[in-house]
Amino acid sequence: MNMEKVNSMDFGEFVDVFGNVIERCPLIAAAVWSQRPFFDLEDLEKHFFAFIDALPQSGQEGILRCHPDLAGREQQRGTLTAESQREQSSAGLTSLSAEERQQLEKLNAQYRARFGFPFVLAARLSDRAAVPRELERRLHCQPAQELRTALGEVKKIGHLRLVDLLGADSSRLKLR
Amino acid sequence: MNMEKVNSMDFGEFVDVFGNVIERCPLIAAAVWSQRPFFDLEDLEKHFFAFIDALPQSGQEGILRCHPDLAGREQQRGTLTAESQREQSSAGLTSLSAEERQQLEKLNAQYRARFGFPFVLAARLSDRAAVPRELERRLHCQPAQELRTALGEVKKIGHLRLVDLLGADSSRLKLR
Repeated sequence: MNMEKVNSMDFGEFVDVFGNVIERCPLIAAAVWSQRPFFDLEDLEKHFFAFIDALPQSGQEGILRCHPDLAGREQQRGTLTAESQREQSSAGLTSLSAEERQQLEKLNAQYRARFGFPFVLAARLSDRAAVPRELERRLHCQPAQELRTALGEVKKIGHLRLVDLLGADSSRLKLR
Repeated sequence: MNMEKVNSMDFGEFVDVFGNVIERCPLIAAAVWSQRPFFDLEDLEKHFFAFIDALPQSGQEGILRCHPDLAGREQQRGTLTAESQREQSSAGLTSLSAEERQQLEKLNAQYRARFGFPFVLAARLSDRAAVPRELERRLHCQPAQELRTALGEVKKIGHLRLVDLLGADSSRLKLR
């Protein structure tokens, strides 16, 4: 998909395509449409990230709370978004042993209790061995620092989803 | 449901219950959870509305763009949210004649083209005869005024959804 196509979309098409760039937050894609036209992937992504950065802390925490646990209840129930299902699968989180799953459940619960939002990680950049290690490490971070770290992961996830939608070459398709 | 129950919810339960108070914007419920405890329905609603009011204009437009057209494509495809389906049905918008539907489709398209968001109306406070009249009237309003009007309708819809969830008596259940 090239940027001319993106810039020609009405808001309904745009939200259909980009509504889950930020997990379960179509509001953000719907807001970003106001900023069209977009020059390239980086320009489009910049508007998603600027919207996140401008939210009050409660809104930033709200974004995180729209994310599922890794290897959690939603994955077991089959109610993940298609994007999240693929990402968790690519990290091997859909084929954990019962023991690995229980360990993650326990860590996820501790993390949620400590920070008031779920542990968010760009799973495609990780793997089943690294996820619990990283969860344990971040569990001991300070809340303000951890909020920044988690939003950084939201942006990594969003970047990879945009690359999937636009194709790796899209960053070189300049309209300028 | 009383407010003690609401205030005891973790964020997952809270978003499951209140995630569609603002149509397809679970982010807002997820953000509002940060403001607990809530004293009563008005207090809870105040936080939803304050979040909306504090968004930049693009975010407010984004909320509107997460709403379906009245008697539109989504209703015909059966992809409305349960709440929206009930509301459109209660206004008689699910049993329009072909002619009435075509008239609304045309007006909805004109409205979207003029304002960049769909026509939003608290359907439960209207009916099939009043909807196209109100749409025609608002089609001629100034954009800044129309944005305010439309957000007022979002708040009316949210209020009625909260009353449904909490019960009409909830406004008198004070924890203070």
